[in-house]
Amino acid sequence: MDSQAKHKCGVFGIWGAPDCAMRCYMGLFAQQHRGQESAGIAVTDGALLKAHVGMGLVSEVFTGPILQSLPGIGGIGHNRYSTTGSNRSCNAQPLLEEYIGGQVALAHNGNLVNADVLRRAYETRGHIFHTSTDTEVILHLLASHHLSKTDPVVEALLHLQGAYSLLFLFKDRIEAARDPWGWRPLVLGKTEDGHDCVASETVALDVIGAKLVREIEPGEIVTLSNQGVTTRRFADAQQPAHCIFEHIYFANPSSKVFGQTVQLVREKLGERLAQEAPVEADYVIPMPDSGRSAAMGYARASGIELREGIVPNRYVGRTFIQPTQRQRDAAVQLKLNAVSDIIAGKRIIVVDDSIVRGTTTHGKMIQLRKAGAKEIHLRISCPPIRHPCYFGIDFPDPAKLVANGRTIKQIGEYLEVDSLHYLSHEGMLTCVERPAEHYCTACFNGKYRIEVDRPVSKLGLERHQMQMFN
Amino acid sequence: MDSQAKHKCGVFGIWGAPDCAMRCYMGLFAQQHRGQESAGIAVTDGALLKAHVGMGLVSEVFTGPILQSLPGIGGIGHNRYSTTGSNRSCNAQPLLEEYIGGQVALAHNGNLVNADVLRRAYETRGHIFHTSTDTEVILHLLASHHLSKTDPVVEALLHLQGAYSLLFLFKDRIEAARDPWGWRPLVLGKTEDGHDCVASETVALDVIGAKLVREIEPGEIVTLSNQGVTTRRFADAQQPAHCIFEHIYFANPSSKVFGQTVQLVREKLGERLAQEAPVEADYVIPMPDSGRSAAMGYARASGIELREGIVPNRYVGRTFIQPTQRQRDAAVQLKLNAVSDIIAGKRIIVVDDSIVRGTTTHGKMIQLRKAGAKEIHLRISCPPIRHPCYFGIDFPDPAKLVANGRTIKQIGEYLEVDSLHYLSHEGMLTCVERPAEHYCTACFNGKYRIEVDRPVSKLGLERHQMQMFN
Amino acid sequence: MDSQAKHKCGVFGIWGAPDCAMRCYMGLFAQQHRGQESAGIAVTDGALLKAHVGMGLVSEVFTGPILQSLPGIGGIGHNRYSTTGSNRSCNAQPLLEEYIGGQVALAHNGNLVNADVLRRAYETRGHIFHTSTDTEVILHLLASHHLSKTDPVVEALLHLQGAYSLLFLFKDRIEAARDPWGWRPLVLGKTEDGHDCVASETVALDVIGAKLVREIEPGEIVTLSNQGVTTRRFADAQQPAHCIFEHIYFANPSSKVFGQTVQLVREKLGERLAQEAPVEADYVIPMPDSGRSAAMGYARASGIELREGIVPNRYVGRTFIQPTQRQRDAAVQLKLNAVSDIIAGKRIIVVDDSIVRGTTTHGKMIQLRKAGAKEIHLRISCPPIRHPCYFGIDFPDPAKLVANGRTIKQIGEYLEVDSLHYLSHEGMLTCVERPAEHYCTACFNGKYRIEVDRPVSKLGLERHQMQMFN
Amino acid sequence: MDSQAKHKCGVFGIWGAPDCAMRCYMGLFAQQHRGQESAGIAVTDGALLKAHVGMGLVSEVFTGPILQSLPGIGGIGHNRYSTTGSNRSCNAQPLLEEYIGGQVALAHNGNLVNADVLRRAYETRGHIFHTSTDTEVILHLLASHHLSKTDPVVEALLHLQGAYSLLFLFKDRIEAARDPWGWRPLVLGKTEDGHDCVASETVALDVIGAKLVREIEPGEIVTLSNQGVTTRRFADAQQPAHCIFEHIYFANPSSKVFGQTVQLVREKLGERLAQEAPVEADYVIPMPDSGRSAAMGYARASGIELREGIVPNRYVGRTFIQPTQRQRDAAVQLKLNAVSDIIAGKRIIVVDDSIVRGTTTHGKMIQLRKAGAKEIHLRISCPPIRHPCYFGIDFPDPAKLVANGRTIKQIGEYLEVDSLHYLSHEGMLTCVERPAEHYCTACFNGKYRIEVDRPVSKLGLERHQMQMFN
Repeated sequence: MDSQAKHKCGVFGIWGAPDCAMRCYMGLFAQQHRGQESAGIAVTDGALLKAHVGMGLVSEVFTGPILQSLPGIGGIGHNRYSTTGSNRSCNAQPLLEEYIGGQVALAHNGNLVNADVLRRAYETRGHIFHTSTDTEVILHLLASHHLSKTDPVVEALLHLQGAYSLLFLFKDRIEAARDPWGWRPLVLGKTEDGHDCVASETVALDVIGAKLVREIEPGEIVTLSNQGVTTRRFADAQQPAHCIFEHIYFANPSSKVFGQTVQLVREKLGERLAQEAPVEADYVIPMPDSGRSAAMGYARASGIELREGIVPNRYVGRTFIQPTQRQRDAAVQLKLNAVSDIIAGKRIIVVDDSIVRGTTTHGKMIQLRKAGAKEIHLRISCPPIRHPCYFGIDFPDPAKLVANGRTIKQIGEYLEVDSLHYLSHEGMLTCVERPAEHYCTACFNGKYRIEVDRPVSKLGLERHQMQMFN
Repeated sequence: MDSQAKHKCGVFGIWGAPDCAMRCYMGLFAQQHRGQESAGIAVTDGALLKAHVGMGLVSEVFTGPILQSLPGIGGIGHNRYSTTGSNRSCNAQPLLEEYIGGQVALAHNGNLVNADVLRRAYETRGHIFHTSTDTEVILHLLASHHLSKTDPVVEALLHLQGAYSLLFLFKDRIEAARDPWGWRPLVLGKTEDGHDCVASETVALDVIGAKLVREIEPGEIVTLSNQGVTTRRFADAQQPAHCIFEHIYFANPSSKVFGQTVQLVREKLGERLAQEAPVEADYVIPMPDSGRSAAMGYARASGIELREGIVPNRYVGRTFIQPTQRQRDAAVQLKLNAVSDIIAGKRIIVVDDSIVRGTTTHGKMIQLRKAGAKEIHLRISCPPIRHPCYFGIDFPDPAKLVANGRTIKQIGEYLEVDSLHYLSHEGMLTCVERPAEHYCTACFNGKYRIEVDRPVSKLGLERHQMQMFN
Repeated sequence: MDSQAKHKCGVFGIWGAPDCAMRCYMGLFAQQHRGQESAGIAVTDGALLKAHVGMGLVSEVFTGPILQSLPGIGGIGHNRYSTTGSNRSCNAQPLLEEYIGGQVALAHNGNLVNADVLRRAYETRGHIFHTSTDTEVILHLLASHHLSKTDPVVEALLHLQGAYSLLFLFKDRIEAARDPWGWRPLVLGKTEDGHDCVASETVALDVIGAKLVREIEPGEIVTLSNQGVTTRRFADAQQPAHCIFEHIYFANPSSKVFGQTVQLVREKLGERLAQEAPVEADYVIPMPDSGRSAAMGYARASGIELREGIVPNRYVGRTFIQPTQRQRDAAVQLKLNAVSDIIAGKRIIVVDDSIVRGTTTHGKMIQLRKAGAKEIHLRISCPPIRHPCYFGIDFPDPAKLVANGRTIKQIGEYLEVDSLHYLSHEGMLTCVERPAEHYCTACFNGKYRIEVDRPVSKLGLERHQMQMFN
Repeated sequence: MDSQAKHKCGVFGIWGAPDCAMRCYMGLFAQQHRGQESAGIAVTDGALLKAHVGMGLVSEVFTGPILQSLPGIGGIGHNRYSTTGSNRSCNAQPLLEEYIGGQVALAHNGNLVNADVLRRAYETRGHIFHTSTDTEVILHLLASHHLSKTDPVVEALLHLQGAYSLLFLFKDRIEAARDPWGWRPLVLGKTEDGHDCVASETVALDVIGAKLVREIEPGEIVTLSNQGVTTRRFADAQQPAHCIFEHIYFANPSSKVFGQTVQLVREKLGERLAQEAPVEADYVIPMPDSGRSAAMGYARASGIELREGIVPNRYVGRTFIQPTQRQRDAAVQLKLNAVSDIIAGKRIIVVDDSIVRGTTTHGKMIQLRKAGAKEIHLRISCPPIRHPCYFGIDFPDPAKLVANGRTIKQIGEYLEVDSLHYLSHEGMLTCVERPAEHYCTACFNGKYRIEVDRPVSKLGLERHQMQMFN
């Protein structure tokens, strides 16, 4: 079941609002698509920090009384991605720690590639670690530079390699930092009643009635405090490496990411796909809900009629009982139902955003065939995913990627479709506005922008977890 | 928030399958849209009946161990609708009772209009009632006719006035009955491995890999047992009174209801709406998710481009914390986000399936206006809802219906749209295949097919409930 | 583990107090020893009744908000006994039903012996039953006599055979009735602030600061209402059949039951036991906590020193994980720890109140032997239990009673003690003040006061249960 | 309600048993009286450590599946004390951390007096802390000495001032250490099947069928591994400072602590009390359950008859709803019931183990008076508690101790008793076998064995907590 790519987290922060925990809740709620494993909010009342974190959806972790127990003048929140079968509550964020500078809370979206090296260095100096996150090392850096340096946050960040959109909460301010490559989005907003806020996506600004002010720049630190917003740079902006997969799959369609509204980018991807891979057919069928925008673009460009031939079950939660093997084929329909009156006897073009493992896609194709589809032409609005991401997306082991070691033809045979086309790498890049070299497309072509220190101890760390509260 | 019409329940039954509880679970899962308040399954092992019911979604009420504790050769299940603020677990179904004929479980979709009269009559004879459901009276009828009559089920049904698709579970059979007017759907199916099953909607057949055999006829009782399927009539079919709102809003788009696939009917409603109420505009925008099919039809018929200008939050569950009044406007966006790059400066046609109270719709219109819409033309794919339903749909008090006592113009002014058009009654009826007089459209025109004994004691009964298990 | 006799329930009611739900809570709390399976409270606000029941301890079922949701001018409550492995929430009391007379709630302590006959009669008349309790039939009697009789409660009670201390809650009064034999206790009290109340035991009066007024007489109905307390008889008092096991084991030691303080009766039982079964020994050791009072009496009468040689674990709840077989011997010590410095090398007299299955007692004896006891002389402060109780105590199947089919000598051999003595039947009766023939001692001698219609369908009914809310 | 002294924790460890998590569970279960706030178990499978901790009783935190998810060859467990109103799950133990030496888990009973100084020193060096426990600093010491020293555990312990019975779990061994003063108990045992184990109290050995081998010596480290048990000293034993309050109140009566069975010590305390403070009276009444042993000693020495005049409610859990103020007097009886037939008109000697705040005791005295006691002579089996404990007992703020600033006479007047006597300091010390100067009695006389660095930042730290999982 767990065949989708998983995102690593969303962050949200707001300063000065009297109901900052409630606004964090709303911001996290809007960014729920960025992580469903755990949620957390940390607040400061000007003197002391307090946090509540828990496993589950934002609406499950937080109740009214809990929000009321988090009064503050500023707060940050975090959504964390879900991994099947693991309860790692000690990894939930924001991390709240005490060090020589006082208390600090930290929320992180992204992934560091030198976390293991740094961790080992600190361990050698006698430090202890209580999570298996790459994030914890950032706090050790901060603590270690507190006395010796004039700007400990900057000093800490200068040691980091990788993707990070970070929110630090101190007793008197939020510091929002974005890595010099700008891998993950991070935006600055202002509410109608004048409070400054930061978020991974603009959709989180929308729900609290805030307007987008601007992106936080790669290599920039923005401080939110009672003195308003100030900025400083800790690094020259590198040639950006915006994660293009935010546009293809992850970000909310209504968000503006890297300067473009996601929904529009996806429609363009579909249009381009129609140009690159036309086929005679009766209908264009979107794979709900992720393929809907691209399908609309494909239909528009191809002139082939769009039909809602697949209906999703809106009540599929994260947990439901798996049917037995004998019922497994039918069970794909627990999630999606084909409308056979639309599909039967027809040549259909199915448009989806991407394929990861391929198992779920395969099940869907069989279902469409059973519903009577005469021809199935599968169109994917990005290139084949063949490489791991070290910068914040949790693709499965490359060996499990359907495109790994298979030609397009072989993939199509595996999926049992009449034709299969992926959007070309070049085609994809024509749909985004910034220069092609400003996007990270490593999951497609394996060209990593910075050297990756493969986290060798990863597996071990995974098992080190402390399980709390089943 | 609770401005939607609420359905009263779905039913599912299967006989002969060794894993009947698991299949009931899957069937209920597929029919979750028909009721989210409670769920229940009753099974028979050939000698004794056992049931498990609970408040919440199917996936919340049932766990693997619970399903395993329900072994049987036949079973029935029930989804119940949600009513804000009430926990009426004793009303959850299937009801499981004991009477002179042994044990019986009953699952009911619909609503009786003479339940109060019957209840009062039985109370006068010394019977006691432990629920506030109309369903319980059916079991009293069954029990009372057990000794004196050759066919107690038939005798019981002959006393009923109103809408009912019923599943009785006895130790050795399921009896599936549908009222003589056929208000609610009820279909017979057969699984690939040869087991007979019944369901409110065909989507429940799909998920267990069963094929639709036929509708249960109005006035028919179908028996599922080890002897296979047998049928008998308990009443001549009346002129049917199929609930047209099943097509407009309630049923799953992929289901075939009253002989037609719901998705296709909705597209036709949209097409007709485009013919009846054309307007010059830039885009057709569907109100997700209920207005999507009609919007597609409208776009197709009008030639105006369809755009996904409103993005729903897929993680809005049944419970989340309401923001304070000051944040309420922004809070509409917790559920829906407008894509301002699509909407801003544009003349848009918003297509939705229906309007009940109007408050949520009003909020959405304001949100679109804030996103920059130049003109908003709201198109509704059914006529104004002005009358209560006594046959299984839980519309709010007529006084709270936005169309009650308002002209279309006044509704449009209240909703702050540039134009508002509802589909005409005649137009609606052109989209369904059976004769117009075979549908119940009383919520639109107030013409009830049978005399309604207004349930005077309803309010009292509501308060009589026994609350169990907070 | 489930080797103890189980009581069937306690009841409590209060009229006129503004916080009647809170006082019911306190009364049930004090009577928790009478039943730990479920708890429930029903209240009336003068017009409508409302109830909350749930599985578990009083403190688990009720929270502050739940109590606040039960405002009323009168209320009744019920504790129900625990049966291993069954969740029968539909059997939880008070039952709240509607009949021709309006609403009624009923709480019952005791057991009817003609419930099955009555139930069958009502089923023949077309009534349906939704619980497997004997209690439900009382409401059918009440409902059936409502129209035809001047005093339906009296008419209903006249049909009952067996043990019952009943509290009916109507919208305007509580009616408290006790069977003509007075099997179970039922007392009338008055609070310091002048409110009338009823309870199974005086300990429940104590906790709400009420004084004992008097026992409800066998065959009497006492009505509590805004008009104060009134009384009427529905039957001449039979020769009483007070359950002597209330004194031996069940009732709270601080309660006054059948005219005597339980603690004092138990001490006398121990004294008498010392006279009947003296033995040379070093110490008298009470089996905590049930054998403590009798042990004190034994020590006093024998002049042998009392020592606390066995220490109970105060944190053994109702659920804990059973160790594996290999650890089972040690596991007896999860509940009790022997103090070897007291016991080692000593001749000890262990005093316990009764033996049911004998398995737990056997485990304890082995534990004492391991702790070094030189001689173990077991003394039991009642005769051997050899017969089932049909009047409200849930002894296991007679075949599982250790005394069934064994001589005292054989029991002693099974328990591996050096000597074993039970208190004689005559000796037991010298410790209670009322005439010997006024007590039911059927569990010891099999002489049932009234003919028992063995509930043949019992087992079937047990399986008929409706499980709700795992 | 929270007027009792609270203990800080119990520890348990076992090596080599295939079911070590289950045995830890049993050991913690037996030591539940040492802490009810949280429970945790950490295990090693020889390569990796895994832990599960949670808030609540051992039987609540651990289920069968959780124990099965903790396979290992060695394990340690921890009970933590309860503090009203706080959920500090991040403080729950065992702490499981990673450092340069690999993984380590730590369970701690006791309290350090130089934790703040050490913590500040480490913070200055850039370390971060995620709990407010004194225990965490021990792991920083361990990590910091790992590379530079031959025996990092010893080096770490040499920096600690205060009370600590510690269990370190490494992947290949348990190291059990006791502070040089021997403040808290720690014993070594061996199971019947030959596995080595350690525990705070011998009662934990009993429940797993283990025999006491010996106490761990003050200043000793005992290692349990596949190579069996080895020992080394890290410090010369200081003059011991055994906490005498373990004997008076905390330890389980069946445990052997500091060489003596607790039950016997308590009886002696009662005997001595009778000699020091005789009074003419009718009965000696134990305050259940803590005063029972001393009362028995008092009765034996005085020749005055012991009667169980106060009956505790065995079902008072940790949470129940507080009655309103008006009902508060009666509410004392929710916990204890006086047997008025025993007490009324009598001169009674009430024996209790200690008085902390005095509020609960006062309530009890009033209750006895209401039950008719003619004279109440309160006897306490230890001296007045007037000073805080910095070594592992959580007495309330000295200002709230009833004996603080009051003479005995004033305390008696406050408690409304006819006479009040505490056991003398000298008398107390005659009841224990080791030299008087080997016990810490600072809570009585304020003579602290080592200089106490009052934890100034305590309050702040309390508020720094991270709340997880409401």
